[in-house]
Amino acid sequence: MTERTLIKDLAASSDGPVSVSGWVETVRDQKKVQFVVLRDESGAVQLVAPRVSGDDGEIVATDVSDTITSLSQGSFLTATGELKHDERVKLGGVEIKLDALDVASLAIAETPIKDDSGIDKRMDWRFLDLRVPRNALIFKIQTTFLHALRSYWVEHDYIEIQTPKLMASASESKAELFRVEYFDGSAFLAQSPQFFKQMAQPAGFGKIFEVGPAFRADPSFTSRHATEFTSVDAEISWIDSHEDVMKMHEEILVAGFQAVKDKHGDAIKELFDVEVTVPTLPFPRIPLAEAKKIVASRGYEIPRADDDMDPEGERQIAAYAREELGSEFVFLTDYASTIRPFYHMRREGDPSITNSYDLIFNGTEISTGAQREHRVDVLTEQIKEKGLDPEELDGYLDFFRYGVPAHGGFGMGLSRVLMLLLGLPNLREATYLFRGPTRLEP
Amino acid sequence: MTERTLIKDLAASSDGPVSVSGWVETVRDQKKVQFVVLRDESGAVQLVAPRVSGDDGEIVATDVSDTITSLSQGSFLTATGELKHDERVKLGGVEIKLDALDVASLAIAETPIKDDSGIDKRMDWRFLDLRVPRNALIFKIQTTFLHALRSYWVEHDYIEIQTPKLMASASESKAELFRVEYFDGSAFLAQSPQFFKQMAQPAGFGKIFEVGPAFRADPSFTSRHATEFTSVDAEISWIDSHEDVMKMHEEILVAGFQAVKDKHGDAIKELFDVEVTVPTLPFPRIPLAEAKKIVASRGYEIPRADDDMDPEGERQIAAYAREELGSEFVFLTDYASTIRPFYHMRREGDPSITNSYDLIFNGTEISTGAQREHRVDVLTEQIKEKGLDPEELDGYLDFFRYGVPAHGGFGMGLSRVLMLLLGLPNLREATYLFRGPTRLEP
Repeated sequence: MTERTLIKDLAASSDGPVSVSGWVETVRDQKKVQFVVLRDESGAVQLVAPRVSGDDGEIVATDVSDTITSLSQGSFLTATGELKHDERVKLGGVEIKLDALDVASLAIAETPIKDDSGIDKRMDWRFLDLRVPRNALIFKIQTTFLHALRSYWVEHDYIEIQTPKLMASASESKAELFRVEYFDGSAFLAQSPQFFKQMAQPAGFGKIFEVGPAFRADPSFTSRHATEFTSVDAEISWIDSHEDVMKMHEEILVAGFQAVKDKHGDAIKELFDVEVTVPTLPFPRIPLAEAKKIVASRGYEIPRADDDMDPEGERQIAAYAREELGSEFVFLTDYASTIRPFYHMRREGDPSITNSYDLIFNGTEISTGAQREHRVDVLTEQIKEKGLDPEELDGYLDFFRYGVPAHGGFGMGLSRVLMLLLGLPNLREATYLFRGPTRLEP
Repeated sequence: MTERTLIKDLAASSDGPVSVSGWVETVRDQKKVQFVVLRDESGAVQLVAPRVSGDDGEIVATDVSDTITSLSQGSFLTATGELKHDERVKLGGVEIKLDALDVASLAIAETPIKDDSGIDKRMDWRFLDLRVPRNALIFKIQTTFLHALRSYWVEHDYIEIQTPKLMASASESKAELFRVEYFDGSAFLAQSPQFFKQMAQPAGFGKIFEVGPAFRADPSFTSRHATEFTSVDAEISWIDSHEDVMKMHEEILVAGFQAVKDKHGDAIKELFDVEVTVPTLPFPRIPLAEAKKIVASRGYEIPRADDDMDPEGERQIAAYAREELGSEFVFLTDYASTIRPFYHMRREGDPSITNSYDLIFNGTEISTGAQREHRVDVLTEQIKEKGLDPEELDGYLDFFRYGVPAHGGFGMGLSRVLMLLLGLPNLREATYLFRGPTRLEP
């Protein structure tokens, strides 16, 4: 492979021969000197080619000067030349005096998107949109964040699983389910790895995690929904309650945010004007009933008949946690059984309450976690109570008939975490290629 | 959470109070003493409960003795008692004298699968099948392997991407494509992340990786095929040829195998009778034409009209690499253009050959890699030549119209690597929940 130097490493390199590769951001084709600003995944640098004069003092065309004249914005090339440190150069204090240019690919001169293009137009041209350093940074942050989570889990003896996304039947509700033509029959796309990550518990895996896609046939067009999203899941055995899940959950987030701050804190400050705060342990925990009182005392009445929060309620309780408790994160606990799925365990002594939580980050829910009901008789009753048919869930119920430990876990939307960390207006910005009801391309 | 000690850590723990959690492997309910072998994800230990005599010398029933008598195999429980080191105890040299048992869940007494159950029956009861230490070890190895790969990539500044599995059209061929009902229209499940990982190159991401599901509507029932599998993918910019891809590919495999050997070498030797060999760099590279001659000289004529290998040919060349070159891995290179997809770059000066390779491990192909054709005019010609319609691939072709670096990458089947590393008879053993034409459950 051509020994290219990453542009971010030029400032620390010695003056002398160097090779960089990237795409053309701007060309200034002047009379006496030509400039190209070249960008790679790590930064941008100025390439300089002084015009060459002939014996008669007239400018002479050279391979390099002709190539530069032909360069369109977005063209990819490798430049070799002499690196020179020069404090007067605003762009990184270095420039490269060109010896040669090797053009890999000339771009069409038109630029389909501009700085002020709308989000839909930008998604149409996502590969160009991602050249913007601010947009690419999102996925570098995501990489660092995920690796910190996985490293925590691996160091704590978790097993990584890959659960199938093709299922014979619905995992939870039949609404929002995509049907797949499967040979002569049908399959369905997993809405979450719920059943299969729970399966790891009677399998004796102890502690597991998974990062993978989940699918929801949700026709809504909010800023927070997608038909396909990356779900971050963990499930652990031998818990006493959801408190044990929350404890692990907050620890991985501290690990993730610490890694992000260490590696990208400065870039995030520069490009998003966001100061990454590593949360302190423990995160605040507020039972839902108390949270509703707090929200009411702030002058907001949640307009819902059930016992749930609504988005504005989440924002209000998050504002309270930030202002009064100094935390961007808050666990809301003790959700009512009426609004939780059948597999959430109910509180001993008060079955109207579940051993479950939502995690709110900067005003929006990013995760739901719970202790699971592992007693097959109680589980069967809860299935019936929710109007579901235990017969249809017989395969799932088998997991609980042959021995199973107490267990619990959470599922967390990856793009939501990124969106809320960086203050992005919607999920699309934090998704490599967004999928929605009217968006399947590119 | 209950402070449980992992059973593997008991030998190094001091005698005294201890708590372990797991499932019942055997019960020996004897007259003077009761024994339970308890297993968790890390090992097995013997629990001992001497019978208690009353003043009259008769055995008295206690909570503990009654509980043990009721225990069925597979029941999950937490045991507390006194840890005692005793060399005479064959199982790890320790035992726990029971103070109390807390049963989380009693198992149904029947055991649906036995040691000699067939693979299909075992898959029906996969959560019980995975309790077998040998089967669970596969996924611990996989966890270690994947983490080593990802760590290599993260340390080398790769960006992790999650490409969508829902697509508007076929990624490569229309055969083997699953159709999804998508609101009022159709979507298709990605057969590979090929197009979208390539998209990261004109996006300027430089180097990317992904580990995620891929789907093939392949009706075959071989030991090496599945309708859903985990694909390990990487794609890098600014390569000179497929050689640069192979270089990275072999380096990640060395990292992965070294980590597996370090962490699981002994257990793999014990449970699979396999000595993990960390491959040495570089792996042998054999052009296909030469490989065919070698195979022929070993007495095997490949019965194919095209220029491809067949499974027996792969076994033969692997045997040659093992015997003559001392390597379990071998790159076969220079595949003919006729049997490679349109997006493989062809050799400069000899378009009958592609800049591509297959990686053979222990006799079976685990991966295909290539330099991609990034020149849009050449690419368009190759699409036509393969009988495809450039119009239908217009969105993909856009990736190459606005500037793109030279690039290449590979896709590798995760379960295949595990299967071949451990000498498993088929892919199902190395898949958490296998999916095939007639297998969608559990």
